[in-house]
Amino acid sequence: MNTKTSSVGLADVRAAAERIRGEAVRTPLLRSDALDAAARGKIWLKPECLQRTGSFKFRGAFNRLSALEPAERQAGVVAFSSGNHAQGVALAAKLLGISATIVMPSDAPRIKVEATRGHGAEIVLYDRLTENREAIAADLAARRGAIVVPSFDDPYIVAGQGTAGLEIEEQLGRAPEVAVVPCGGGGLSSGIAIGLPDSRIVVAEPEGYDDVTRSLAGGAIERVQDPGPTLCDALQTLEMAPLTFGILHGRGAEGVSVSEREVKRAVAFAFRELKLVVEPGGAAALAAVLAGKVDVAGRTCAVVLSGGNVDADTYTRCLGA
Amino acid sequence: MNTKTSSVGLADVRAAAERIRGEAVRTPLLRSDALDAAARGKIWLKPECLQRTGSFKFRGAFNRLSALEPAERQAGVVAFSSGNHAQGVALAAKLLGISATIVMPSDAPRIKVEATRGHGAEIVLYDRLTENREAIAADLAARRGAIVVPSFDDPYIVAGQGTAGLEIEEQLGRAPEVAVVPCGGGGLSSGIAIGLPDSRIVVAEPEGYDDVTRSLAGGAIERVQDPGPTLCDALQTLEMAPLTFGILHGRGAEGVSVSEREVKRAVAFAFRELKLVVEPGGAAALAAVLAGKVDVAGRTCAVVLSGGNVDADTYTRCLGA
Repeated sequence: MNTKTSSVGLADVRAAAERIRGEAVRTPLLRSDALDAAARGKIWLKPECLQRTGSFKFRGAFNRLSALEPAERQAGVVAFSSGNHAQGVALAAKLLGISATIVMPSDAPRIKVEATRGHGAEIVLYDRLTENREAIAADLAARRGAIVVPSFDDPYIVAGQGTAGLEIEEQLGRAPEVAVVPCGGGGLSSGIAIGLPDSRIVVAEPEGYDDVTRSLAGGAIERVQDPGPTLCDALQTLEMAPLTFGILHGRGAEGVSVSEREVKRAVAFAFRELKLVVEPGGAAALAAVLAGKVDVAGRTCAVVLSGGNVDADTYTRCLGA
Repeated sequence: MNTKTSSVGLADVRAAAERIRGEAVRTPLLRSDALDAAARGKIWLKPECLQRTGSFKFRGAFNRLSALEPAERQAGVVAFSSGNHAQGVALAAKLLGISATIVMPSDAPRIKVEATRGHGAEIVLYDRLTENREAIAADLAARRGAIVVPSFDDPYIVAGQGTAGLEIEEQLGRAPEVAVVPCGGGGLSSGIAIGLPDSRIVVAEPEGYDDVTRSLAGGAIERVQDPGPTLCDALQTLEMAPLTFGILHGRGAEGVSVSEREVKRAVAFAFRELKLVVEPGGAAALAAVLAGKVDVAGRTCAVVLSGGNVDADTYTRCLGA
């Protein structure tokens, strides 16, 4: 599991679980009478909004950074992210005594920028429309000899995210029949596909950003073009990686897309019925289930709430939905 | 444990834990880097907002109702409550096949009235300023031969709420040095005082509604007069009961009061840092800790977040704090 092209197996996810033990939160598995009634199924929620840094990203980041060689740790790490991966890397780096530089878009939610800085990382802001974050990060890394920590295209990142799937099966006492997972580049969903080898995997994307859904349906990676704005800042990926595509396609995963309105309603549902703060992107899988886009009737289904880092004004707008 | 004047012991709380097993949620014990830093202690959160019906009240209500005799079940139950006890009784009654009538103030949060009705209870609204809810409930109960289920002045209710304390000790592996608990009539805090016999107990009340704080300090039950409005609708109790006073006073518990501003800040902190929806009254203990009103520096402390049933407009106002 040392190069980008190698895949990830259950043993890697188990090794990741050992590495993050005592550092990451073992988030609970929750259920809700109102949700079961609305979905006409037996729904179990994995609230990664309760994870350290407010999203699942800490799992993969800590797993990646704790596997670095001493010399690599010394050189520091660079990451680019709209916010959740940024926070995960920043906190993992702080805990491991590694210096971190994070390249973030200037329009990232304020709560995410402030929290990343709060974990002691150096922030480099860029303009999403005119600048290329990969180039900025690569340049920074080259000048400092630092390692770039990708947000999903890395076997250690995928294995780390997969620990959420392992936990679901341990907490439930069996594999859920279906697991529905919010999806940007497919790091979390492909990790969970490995961690839950006996479950049907469904990924949920915002409308316009449904590159994974299309790629899985068509059997080859497809890139989306100019999708326009979305409330789901965490899921604004235009193209998945061969690593995540290979895993999800190999597992026969499929995708659904959800509208902005469906996402807002899911955020409001989580407020009203679950008492959980879920960010728009983190609510995509819940939105898909509430909108009847995944057939869960009579089934045992795990729904991942992938993050809760949302500004108060965006949140308030969602509650009015 | 059959009359109002009898007290409650650890065996009663353990029996309650058996009765509610599989019905109530075993809420997780969570922690937060940001909270530990702010409080300079080791804080463990018991989020009863994640309990069924969105507050701890389901524990006591289910314990009380499941201990009714068959003839009593047949006659149905009556309760009065601004909302959280109402929902707890309504859901417990539904699960046990008992008919429930709930007397609620006409200015109760809409979310609480709707949820109570959603659990199948009959709602009787009254005017808080001109009508007496105890009299209305007693009259209803007399006419129907139904049992009145008090919100805190009942040994089964207290024992049921105490199960939250038992769980804290089991989940932590030891008793916390301090437990800070939101307090209205003292049902939850006295239950937790029994469930955590080795912890120092601190109750948190809204300013003006600090009857328990004063009663514990003075050694006799004191009633507060005309305290005016508070965001903490769940904690608007004017006077505690001999049962809850006896338990808390016997344990050497003490109280602190928190301002509306401190409560709002705690609700906003829970949104931003914990990703939990906590209602104003449910955030009173967190508010006390964040405001430095409880000495937790260097200590292991359990803070109960007692409920999360809050309307969107009230919540939004708190987020601006």
